[in-house]
Amino acid sequence: MGDRLSRRLERRTPLQVASTPSLDELTHTSSLGLLYPIAPGVTPGSDTSHLAIFGFDPYVYYKGRGPFEALGAGLELKPGDVAFRGNFAHVDHNMVVVDRRAGRSLDEAFALADFLNQNLSFDDVEVVIRQTTEHRFALVLRGKGLSPSVTDTDPHRTGVRLAEARPISPSQEAVRTAEILNRLTELAHKSLNQHPLNLKREEKGLLKANAILLRGAGTLSNMPSFEETYGIKGFAATGTAMIRGFCRTIGLEAPFIQGATGDSRTNIDAKVRAGLKALETNDFLYVHFKATDAAGHDKNPEMKVQMVEKFDQLIGQLLNGLTGEEVLCVTGDHCTPVDLGEHSADPVPLLVGSPDSYGDGEKFTEVGCAFGSLGRLRGLELMRVLMNQANRISKFGE
Amino acid sequence: MGDRLSRRLERRTPLQVASTPSLDELTHTSSLGLLYPIAPGVTPGSDTSHLAIFGFDPYVYYKGRGPFEALGAGLELKPGDVAFRGNFAHVDHNMVVVDRRAGRSLDEAFALADFLNQNLSFDDVEVVIRQTTEHRFALVLRGKGLSPSVTDTDPHRTGVRLAEARPISPSQEAVRTAEILNRLTELAHKSLNQHPLNLKREEKGLLKANAILLRGAGTLSNMPSFEETYGIKGFAATGTAMIRGFCRTIGLEAPFIQGATGDSRTNIDAKVRAGLKALETNDFLYVHFKATDAAGHDKNPEMKVQMVEKFDQLIGQLLNGLTGEEVLCVTGDHCTPVDLGEHSADPVPLLVGSPDSYGDGEKFTEVGCAFGSLGRLRGLELMRVLMNQANRISKFGE
Repeated sequence: MGDRLSRRLERRTPLQVASTPSLDELTHTSSLGLLYPIAPGVTPGSDTSHLAIFGFDPYVYYKGRGPFEALGAGLELKPGDVAFRGNFAHVDHNMVVVDRRAGRSLDEAFALADFLNQNLSFDDVEVVIRQTTEHRFALVLRGKGLSPSVTDTDPHRTGVRLAEARPISPSQEAVRTAEILNRLTELAHKSLNQHPLNLKREEKGLLKANAILLRGAGTLSNMPSFEETYGIKGFAATGTAMIRGFCRTIGLEAPFIQGATGDSRTNIDAKVRAGLKALETNDFLYVHFKATDAAGHDKNPEMKVQMVEKFDQLIGQLLNGLTGEEVLCVTGDHCTPVDLGEHSADPVPLLVGSPDSYGDGEKFTEVGCAFGSLGRLRGLELMRVLMNQANRISKFGE
Repeated sequence: MGDRLSRRLERRTPLQVASTPSLDELTHTSSLGLLYPIAPGVTPGSDTSHLAIFGFDPYVYYKGRGPFEALGAGLELKPGDVAFRGNFAHVDHNMVVVDRRAGRSLDEAFALADFLNQNLSFDDVEVVIRQTTEHRFALVLRGKGLSPSVTDTDPHRTGVRLAEARPISPSQEAVRTAEILNRLTELAHKSLNQHPLNLKREEKGLLKANAILLRGAGTLSNMPSFEETYGIKGFAATGTAMIRGFCRTIGLEAPFIQGATGDSRTNIDAKVRAGLKALETNDFLYVHFKATDAAGHDKNPEMKVQMVEKFDQLIGQLLNGLTGEEVLCVTGDHCTPVDLGEHSADPVPLLVGSPDSYGDGEKFTEVGCAFGSLGRLRGLELMRVLMNQANRISKFGE
């Protein structure tokens, strides 16, 4: 949600421009500050940032994004499984990547993933694939003797050939896994290129989704759960597969919520309803809102302002269902400045509201937060600070 | 450049007293904060601070100041070489140190260093010595079986005998190196005491520079380069040997600049001209200004105010040659408060100016910086924060 002074908003941030009556009201009775999701100058991914903000050191626990994506897609992960994130892409007859995502709204993605799921397998290695959102899917290799020490087949740009997976450790497992990935990539291309759904796309003048690009190989690391760490049970309302996967990894209840799409059309009523219901039996609620980030990536300041306003409505609805005695925190997992179009290392605005807050201002903005009474915190410290505010105190020493 | 409220400036700091039109102008469009060069309460040397501020952990990489001094003097360092910093000093006939620097402007220093360079050698150990600034020199021992684990021969005060070098590890190499240092010290004293230049000094009523005091034994550690670390090439304009040595160690281009003397007479035009020219082919420019520190050591508040004003002129000239799109940082490597006369652990004022800055105030002072939007940063974080501001982003995670 954080941003910089945008050239296209007359050197204001989307938070400064947006009309946010509910956040404004909350700010009157809350403390403000800035949060470095990981550390000053470190640009986080959403995955490393979520680890840190929930109190798990990403330098210890981060082992690639594939596992989060797989969990978020509802796939089960067993010890030894190697998981990847994937895109359906379009390549030409020389395997040169023409489009890394063959259309952002690829209606055929679910069916194509399911088709591959039925038809790909190697000797004693099982291949499990499931679409997550849009053109994205998770892919899991399951079998003995696999390794996550392999390079991406996603070249991360267009105009070059699909990359060959290479081992990045000298182990037999890594060599074997790279070979499997390369054969898998070839087989997937052949079968996708002839798939009826793709032939139809071609007829309509659309790019065929005729290749899979894999990245972020990882295995599931052994993490303590949220409940073990904080002694409370929690629930997550999110429409984003990766975040759902993360939340499940740490033991939060994170169901699919009908209408929570992880994009600008997401149904905030459904999220708030599910969240408030969950609070009847949980101590902790996490509501994730993704669309502000997407607007940043798309370098679309007007959309970001709109999405901040949509988020403000979510906050308003949430506040209506709360007692006023809760500890509330509003923050982001990173900035995606609209003029930059990618994640940055700027600290994110932070609001903590509880009956003990001072009331730091009139409007929730980056500039106001820079001068707030909370000062600067780091992601790893945040949950502990909130637990303290909630009087759930665990003392170090006596 | 930072200081405390000086009793002799009516409880104001030199930055508050000085007339600094260029810094004032810059402050209007920049963000302010405070920088702990290493950590709160840690008083840095210039060497450890420079390591930290350029992003290299001094607790990992700092192996004595001698190597930096030697590199700064233009000496080459080979693996195994042990380097020292040295002073020409005056001792009486009992080897009691009367003056640790036999005159700050020792005109004979270059010739005396050269004389020793020609005349000192031990068995298979080569001794290389070169003057750096004023009464200071670098000395390198080169040969097999040497160790930096030896104590200083510099007693660091007057009225006591020149110290005997002692091994601080039980290794043969350390024992041998200490023996060599002690013989070297004795030989240097004998030959310097009779040197014609010193006899002339005596005639003029000046103290003979008849002893060498060595300190800061060290070897060159294996550090990643600046370019490896940040992916950009850089240039350093500095007249201080040790800083030039440091910059060369991390791979910055750091030539001798005619007129850049590292003291109050330094030619700021020459530094700015060299720096701006270098920016045509480099991404990063470091301009070092030393004379504010010297004024602090000399407990001279008026001189420090003057030197702040000279630095302000340097900033003005630099700004004239920039486009306004650069990321600019103004800070110090430590405070040297004029009432204290030595380095302190106070945080230093920090200014970061970029097209994304909020504009935090009217004047660049310690007090204004304490309330700036940048909050507090640490030296190790600074380069990453500047790289983020320059949109040179490298993401951790996805």
